[in-house]
Amino acid sequence: MKGLLKQAKSAKPKAHSENSPKKGGFLTDIVSISDFSRGNIELVLENAAKMEKLPRDRKAQILKNFVVASLFFEPSTRTRLSFETAAQNLGARVVGFADAGVTSTKKGETLSDTIKMVENYADIIVMRHFLEGAAKRAAEISRRPIVNAGDGANQHPTQTLLDLYTMKKEFGKIDRLRICLAGDLKYGRTVHSLMYALSKFRDVTVYLVSPKSLEMPRHIIEETKHSLRIVETQSLEKYIKEFDVLYATRIQKERFPDEIEYEKLKNVYIITPELVAKARPGMRIMHPLPRVNEIEPEVDRMPAALYFSQAANGVPVREALLSMLKGAEK
Amino acid sequence: MKGLLKQAKSAKPKAHSENSPKKGGFLTDIVSISDFSRGNIELVLENAAKMEKLPRDRKAQILKNFVVASLFFEPSTRTRLSFETAAQNLGARVVGFADAGVTSTKKGETLSDTIKMVENYADIIVMRHFLEGAAKRAAEISRRPIVNAGDGANQHPTQTLLDLYTMKKEFGKIDRLRICLAGDLKYGRTVHSLMYALSKFRDVTVYLVSPKSLEMPRHIIEETKHSLRIVETQSLEKYIKEFDVLYATRIQKERFPDEIEYEKLKNVYIITPELVAKARPGMRIMHPLPRVNEIEPEVDRMPAALYFSQAANGVPVREALLSMLKGAEK
Amino acid sequence: MKGLLKQAKSAKPKAHSENSPKKGGFLTDIVSISDFSRGNIELVLENAAKMEKLPRDRKAQILKNFVVASLFFEPSTRTRLSFETAAQNLGARVVGFADAGVTSTKKGETLSDTIKMVENYADIIVMRHFLEGAAKRAAEISRRPIVNAGDGANQHPTQTLLDLYTMKKEFGKIDRLRICLAGDLKYGRTVHSLMYALSKFRDVTVYLVSPKSLEMPRHIIEETKHSLRIVETQSLEKYIKEFDVLYATRIQKERFPDEIEYEKLKNVYIITPELVAKARPGMRIMHPLPRVNEIEPEVDRMPAALYFSQAANGVPVREALLSMLKGAEK
Repeated sequence: MKGLLKQAKSAKPKAHSENSPKKGGFLTDIVSISDFSRGNIELVLENAAKMEKLPRDRKAQILKNFVVASLFFEPSTRTRLSFETAAQNLGARVVGFADAGVTSTKKGETLSDTIKMVENYADIIVMRHFLEGAAKRAAEISRRPIVNAGDGANQHPTQTLLDLYTMKKEFGKIDRLRICLAGDLKYGRTVHSLMYALSKFRDVTVYLVSPKSLEMPRHIIEETKHSLRIVETQSLEKYIKEFDVLYATRIQKERFPDEIEYEKLKNVYIITPELVAKARPGMRIMHPLPRVNEIEPEVDRMPAALYFSQAANGVPVREALLSMLKGAEK
Repeated sequence: MKGLLKQAKSAKPKAHSENSPKKGGFLTDIVSISDFSRGNIELVLENAAKMEKLPRDRKAQILKNFVVASLFFEPSTRTRLSFETAAQNLGARVVGFADAGVTSTKKGETLSDTIKMVENYADIIVMRHFLEGAAKRAAEISRRPIVNAGDGANQHPTQTLLDLYTMKKEFGKIDRLRICLAGDLKYGRTVHSLMYALSKFRDVTVYLVSPKSLEMPRHIIEETKHSLRIVETQSLEKYIKEFDVLYATRIQKERFPDEIEYEKLKNVYIITPELVAKARPGMRIMHPLPRVNEIEPEVDRMPAALYFSQAANGVPVREALLSMLKGAEK
Repeated sequence: MKGLLKQAKSAKPKAHSENSPKKGGFLTDIVSISDFSRGNIELVLENAAKMEKLPRDRKAQILKNFVVASLFFEPSTRTRLSFETAAQNLGARVVGFADAGVTSTKKGETLSDTIKMVENYADIIVMRHFLEGAAKRAAEISRRPIVNAGDGANQHPTQTLLDLYTMKKEFGKIDRLRICLAGDLKYGRTVHSLMYALSKFRDVTVYLVSPKSLEMPRHIIEETKHSLRIVETQSLEKYIKEFDVLYATRIQKERFPDEIEYEKLKNVYIITPELVAKARPGMRIMHPLPRVNEIEPEVDRMPAALYFSQAANGVPVREALLSMLKGAEK
């Protein structure tokens, strides 16, 4: 498969971080979106596009006879199934667990010891953990590549990459896009990572739409405002005509300090066909899913509904990442 | 594998139903046994017989590089293992979950959204759900074939097909068989589906043996009595000399409205070597398993005990079904 | 693969036991380490060494198109992942469950019925069960080979084989080794099995180091003392200069009858860099893992730390065993 996937060597800018040493330019662990240079992000997106065109039997040669460990210390169907499908599509064998309840963690084993065990027989380790920093810690310990499939409220870099891939595929570019992030911007790790990732591109406008109590953390705005154009508002309608993308997130009643504010705002952030009708025809709606009631089911049938394709993009993006980590030497 | 499996085209009668549109005559979803014509049932049984003779390496080509999703919102070892073995024997990759506890369902995701996610990367979706009608709903939504592995108390069509395959294999026919259904006929979905399926064959006699409070629902008898000869009784011994098949089901103490009736009847429905001795030598005992104490372990060694072979037949029947759904276009 | 693995025929002494009938000299079930002759143990260790050298693609032919059932009625990540990796490395398909919670056991199904179901579609059955004797019972029932992956506090023979393999690999021999078993010798099934296994070798010295209340059961000492040199002590330091292997086990506070004894002894059995410094340079530390605090993390970086390699050895040993059971006729 040598010539097939674009190698990291040809990428221009390179990320450098303590936690993710490099090999021929590409990362040897996927821990945080901050470890990615723009060049590395684009490399992933290009390889994901190639994965979509590759015949199944050729794809199944890429990680043939490799073992991918899928360690979900915290359950997640969507992400786990997507990774396990990707790994198997590449021809890899998958071993692991879907739930920490069935692991030695119950007996008091440390994450470090679990990783030292699994690295002995897996070539790549995909893990989701309930603690922030768990993936970084695992990457420090393990001599095998670690792929962070979510660590607490902290990072979920493959979600961000599939979000970017979805935008690139739909609009042909990420530079110059006008993207609205709406809903709970305070607790959603998805939108946090997306802010950092978008700040690596050029002339992106981000509209931050949330109730007062669920605003984007100030430090994230400070860190990204040099390269993003940021517009803050509580109104979803005000700038709707300008959006290329409306990225919605789940907004939970429990997050509101008082019920009166919730009652006042709850319907403002629900995406209805009427709302969508006010946007430009090319606007697309994204959502990391699962949704509860942020988007009305009637919207699913509109051309604006991009969220199911977005979920589907998880597989080629993860195929690309796993294939790029093949043989990584740490 | 083209010439190998008998194609649906050659089948004569064809089922038509809203929920299961057709492709070349065969179903594109396996939702309910009612969707099957006699021709389609026979086609499945013929293909199952072929599966038993097919060398493993040839069988492993049939769904090579295909992905089968195995979604068990409600646990079931027997059915899940049998489906997952069948899928893998055909060369498919399997992804999924064994327990809804590890899914996004906990976060409030609808079945519809789960299906819309999974159809993006699986070629065929096998699902068990705790709600009646879940498989039908999934089939309406999904552009991929849905195989119902049980939806609440409603349907379990692959169980019925393996029951029919077991009878066909043992007796060489289904027409003219005399079949006793014994035990809990009120709540057992297995025996309900079997009634409908048997009514598609000719001159079948069904003996319905149950306590008064657990009788076969009247509407099922009404719907099938035009083509089945039905004999109702509370005595297992009365007609035992006539049975070709004694199909036993689990009978649970909790189902009885009063304990006195339970104490009176409980032993009447336990199958003992003494009872079997009263039957004709060719009689065979079937049971959907798991059994608790409906059949005494001593019966296992008698030639009449067909229930373990019956369970084993689940694999070729499911192999046949999955292979027949390959490439189904909805 | 015929010529590849050393066949049992060439092994000299042969074990005989009711529960494990033989085929060409090797066992047809792996139930208890007591069923193994020295010759059979050596055969497993030789084949494990071959497995480590075998290219992945050749290894993947050994059980190609075979099905291995992995039935964990009691959870265990380490053992399950190791077996499932081994089976898949050999090219087998794996079906099963990681947790009895998702099985028909909940509906009251007997172990016997579960085994009679699974033997219909699996070629080899690996099982862990919470009840002592479960594997033996399964082996009696099943016409397929059973591999005991732990049955309650009773047996865990593949752990013992990987322990022996680790010693053989490190020291080139097992005969004449001086092995300290330290910690909880009363409840640890690992150290019990190891005593029996070591007694099959020549001139092995075993140092039993434990608090008074957690001593090695007297009957095990009686049964093995004819062939082992046994030294009993409560002090880990006293003979430390003599050890080739220091085999530590988890020691739990709850096991102590009174807290005063626990407080007095707890630190005596924790392995620290200072303790290791007192041993001969060639001494190696083993531990069945998971550890809690028996070995200080600083020890991990010392050359004496053999426990992670030991865990890694689980895969080639299990590959060897599964391959040797291929086609076993019972």
